[in-house]
Amino acid sequence: MFDLKIILMGFGAVGTGVAKAISIKKDKIKNNYGVNLQLVAVADSSSSAICENGLDEKLLIETKEKEGKLSKYPEFGSEINGLNVLDAVDYDLLVEVTPTNIKNGEPAKSLTLKAFSSGKDVVTSNKGHLALFFSEMNEVANKNNVMFKYEASVGGAMPIINFAEETLPSSNISSIIGILNGTTNYILSRMTSEGSTYKNTLEESQQLGIAETDPTQDVEGIDAACKTVILANSILGIDATYSDVEVEGITKITSEAIELSKKEGYLIKLIAEVSNDTLKVSPRLVKKNSPYAVDGTLNMATVKTDLADEVTVVGKGAGSIETASAMLTDIINIIKAKY
Amino acid sequence: MFDLKIILMGFGAVGTGVAKAISIKKDKIKNNYGVNLQLVAVADSSSSAICENGLDEKLLIETKEKEGKLSKYPEFGSEINGLNVLDAVDYDLLVEVTPTNIKNGEPAKSLTLKAFSSGKDVVTSNKGHLALFFSEMNEVANKNNVMFKYEASVGGAMPIINFAEETLPSSNISSIIGILNGTTNYILSRMTSEGSTYKNTLEESQQLGIAETDPTQDVEGIDAACKTVILANSILGIDATYSDVEVEGITKITSEAIELSKKEGYLIKLIAEVSNDTLKVSPRLVKKNSPYAVDGTLNMATVKTDLADEVTVVGKGAGSIETASAMLTDIINIIKAKY
Repeated sequence: MFDLKIILMGFGAVGTGVAKAISIKKDKIKNNYGVNLQLVAVADSSSSAICENGLDEKLLIETKEKEGKLSKYPEFGSEINGLNVLDAVDYDLLVEVTPTNIKNGEPAKSLTLKAFSSGKDVVTSNKGHLALFFSEMNEVANKNNVMFKYEASVGGAMPIINFAEETLPSSNISSIIGILNGTTNYILSRMTSEGSTYKNTLEESQQLGIAETDPTQDVEGIDAACKTVILANSILGIDATYSDVEVEGITKITSEAIELSKKEGYLIKLIAEVSNDTLKVSPRLVKKNSPYAVDGTLNMATVKTDLADEVTVVGKGAGSIETASAMLTDIINIIKAKY
Repeated sequence: MFDLKIILMGFGAVGTGVAKAISIKKDKIKNNYGVNLQLVAVADSSSSAICENGLDEKLLIETKEKEGKLSKYPEFGSEINGLNVLDAVDYDLLVEVTPTNIKNGEPAKSLTLKAFSSGKDVVTSNKGHLALFFSEMNEVANKNNVMFKYEASVGGAMPIINFAEETLPSSNISSIIGILNGTTNYILSRMTSEGSTYKNTLEESQQLGIAETDPTQDVEGIDAACKTVILANSILGIDATYSDVEVEGITKITSEAIELSKKEGYLIKLIAEVSNDTLKVSPRLVKKNSPYAVDGTLNMATVKTDLADEVTVVGKGAGSIETASAMLTDIINIIKAKY
């Protein structure tokens, strides 16, 4: 039995999901792969809990819920945070789930590069550093001979990067067209089913916690554009960055436009398109009863190939435990490849 | 460079697709994996072409198209057929695409067992022997330490077995619910869009070559039931056989029933359900704008998991080159695992 020592940076919705997923699945992973997943450090934005012999996943979640800060974790809580956490304890794998920052990719970028330079593998759900510096990040990973996995950064629990790599290796992929943002898909679906205005539907979505208080990243297409860049680089091998994507959000869509398209048998969806010619996020008409016609917060992606024709995946684009499941798949793939 | 010597048994639509796919992708596979795919024998129902130094894929297809029989293949054509082909030349891998036989699984069963007993790996698109003798076949494969892959047997180009194994290893799968037969999905979709009767739509489908002259296997749900058994065994680990599936086809569905469900916002689909409690193929109501609402000859499957919630795949359930692409993925996975 080998202890895989993990540092988890970020302890919001996805971070607690990762702790929960590890707690649920560690016995299964022990049995199947002979590896014991051990959280040796977990950090929120200002504090951390660090123990070289492993922390208790449930106590971590309890501490965060009750006390708000990991510094209150019994015995092993401290004010150590940020890059210093990576120096505080020996580890094998960094799981990085800090908030996406589309301005400069920090703190994800610095955390990840520091882990790479120490020869550590990294699993992330972060989009900022990937959308801005995809090729640079991957070059450093390759140079240090470490693995860098980011399935959860696109589509949450919907497999897309592993999907293309593992289930379609016989085909060449020419394009990916999909719905990569759950919040905007929810808003457009509700506008379609209820006939309501954009403004009212956004407010309803905010009350339900589906849209954030500042919904800009979602409704302006920024989140979907980040994911577009990640798919372009990882699946199509296009050396692109965030500024290469043409982006239009959903804020100008009227209930009249939706009503009209509905009458003609179409739905309006915020569609991301990735191909050698096109990197684009924009509202587009899709046919009813087509794979694009998924409702609510679902994400989908249609992969166009030479031999298998079009293949589509649909899944939950967000959610704490759902996104964590994709990260755990990345961890398992690292275990299968290296241990 | 290693020559992977392949015997291809069966040279109908899927078999010619396999030859074509190998012809298109052999250079890519050479470059990526250092393996040269070489067809050393190809057999149709009564004859074969056999050459230990490799046959020409395009000439094989041309011979079959022009002459109708592989015995006419220049220099290397012969009347050798069936099990004798496996004794006629040295090989590494059997690609078995003979017609599905749900009575006794032959000739697929005997061909496959003979290959196993000689220590050869097998890739198949066949459903009969798997639906009848899944655990027996896999036990013999394990005992002989060979690989047995059958992605193409369910859903054609829609990845489902590799999908569950490679992209969802972090989750437990509790059920798979899907549309696994393209012909019946086409008939039901046309009845819905055109308001036509079952009888007229079946005739139209037969004229288009989508339904066979004897459509029993499709319209009575037999084909979908075979696939249900394969998914039950391969993904859920249920030791089931064909007779365990409760089957109802689409022959009794009236245009009135379809019209009525349409008014209520539903579609009628032939749904296969696989779970620990249920192995069933039957017509069921599904919601419009749900992942089940795919039209035409498409196949789909929704996989229910504990962590990733529901994940859906959609793809072409049939087609010569599409089905061959799934078989080529199986071949690549064998190469990655063994060579």
